[in-house]
Amino acid sequence: MEPEPKRMNDAEISAAVAQLDGWQVVDGMLSREYEFSDFVEAIGFMMRVSIWAQTINHHPEWSNIYNLVRVGLRTHDVDGISDYDVRLAAKMNELADRWRTASNG
Amino acid sequence: MEPEPKRMNDAEISAAVAQLDGWQVVDGMLSREYEFSDFVEAIGFMMRVSIWAQTINHHPEWSNIYNLVRVGLRTHDVDGISDYDVRLAAKMNELADRWRTASNG
Amino acid sequence: MEPEPKRMNDAEISAAVAQLDGWQVVDGMLSREYEFSDFVEAIGFMMRVSIWAQTINHHPEWSNIYNLVRVGLRTHDVDGISDYDVRLAAKMNELADRWRTASNG
Amino acid sequence: MEPEPKRMNDAEISAAVAQLDGWQVVDGMLSREYEFSDFVEAIGFMMRVSIWAQTINHHPEWSNIYNLVRVGLRTHDVDGISDYDVRLAAKMNELADRWRTASNG
Repeated sequence: MEPEPKRMNDAEISAAVAQLDGWQVVDGMLSREYEFSDFVEAIGFMMRVSIWAQTINHHPEWSNIYNLVRVGLRTHDVDGISDYDVRLAAKMNELADRWRTASNG
Repeated sequence: MEPEPKRMNDAEISAAVAQLDGWQVVDGMLSREYEFSDFVEAIGFMMRVSIWAQTINHHPEWSNIYNLVRVGLRTHDVDGISDYDVRLAAKMNELADRWRTASNG
Repeated sequence: MEPEPKRMNDAEISAAVAQLDGWQVVDGMLSREYEFSDFVEAIGFMMRVSIWAQTINHHPEWSNIYNLVRVGLRTHDVDGISDYDVRLAAKMNELADRWRTASNG
Repeated sequence: MEPEPKRMNDAEISAAVAQLDGWQVVDGMLSREYEFSDFVEAIGFMMRVSIWAQTINHHPEWSNIYNLVRVGLRTHDVDGISDYDVRLAAKMNELADRWRTASNG
């Protein structure tokens, strides 16, 4: 079993966000928008994230419009942002950056 | 090549919506929410829809929260709801109903 | 953490296979072929299975040709068939049967 | 509608394969193995390819074992290798190379 998510206070969240490229806190959620080259890449990203997210049983709120994926992270059980949201945000950047570095390369 | 999408007028949209179980027009978009048993089924639905949507090059605006998928359809090129939105809505019902009938069976 | 997979002996495997609709042991692997209505359904099935498989960190060997998915399960770490293979086989049936009952309904 | 696939002769196939990094003809199929960093990346690749393949209604024969994806391409309707197989092979390289360049970067 994974450990329980821990609610983070404002100072902890600020410190975490400073390490998370592109993320910010909006309306109490850890939030980011990703832009991909097209629909295929956007959906491919969502599928990779879905597989990974399921392994820690923590899931994003997200929307997709063609090549855009907007994400909001929050942990219902602690009624706030937790270390699980930070883990998922970091993993999403890793999965997306891999793509982006390549397409820019 | 697929034919161009055709903008539908209000009477045509009303007639189409009457045939589309669960869909309605909200803020100028053909809209529906699907509820699945869990995250795996919701994402599996999005994957099947994505493959199909790509074949007619027409894509939904949609969001996912755990077992819920909310969809809004609109055709940018005609600045309104088109026959493509109706086709995609009908196909989404077909792909989702298949699942739902089974799980109720 | 999930418990370690346990190697099953021939009697245990026979008893398990008797409960698994459509599965048999072929070349030392727990094996089955699924037939879906089309490519979209076959890939949708693989996606749902992938998400679930990752949660127990146990993955199928499988191939896809259009609407067919052929699966072979075996546990490398125990050099044989384990309880993890049986769990994954049962879950695959559940995910596929849901689809099949519906399309036959 | 997409044009009909055209059967290629041996000289045309050789010329095409020379341009397709990593591909060769094995048992009458255009063939390649891709190695990814893990299961998530392998399945993410298969999902991106699936969406794209559906748009030209031409599908691979392929298998997956953890981080490996083995592909064989052949066109049933022409009983041989066609221009569609070459298009799909080139697209698969593009979708995979994007990933690979990034992970090496």
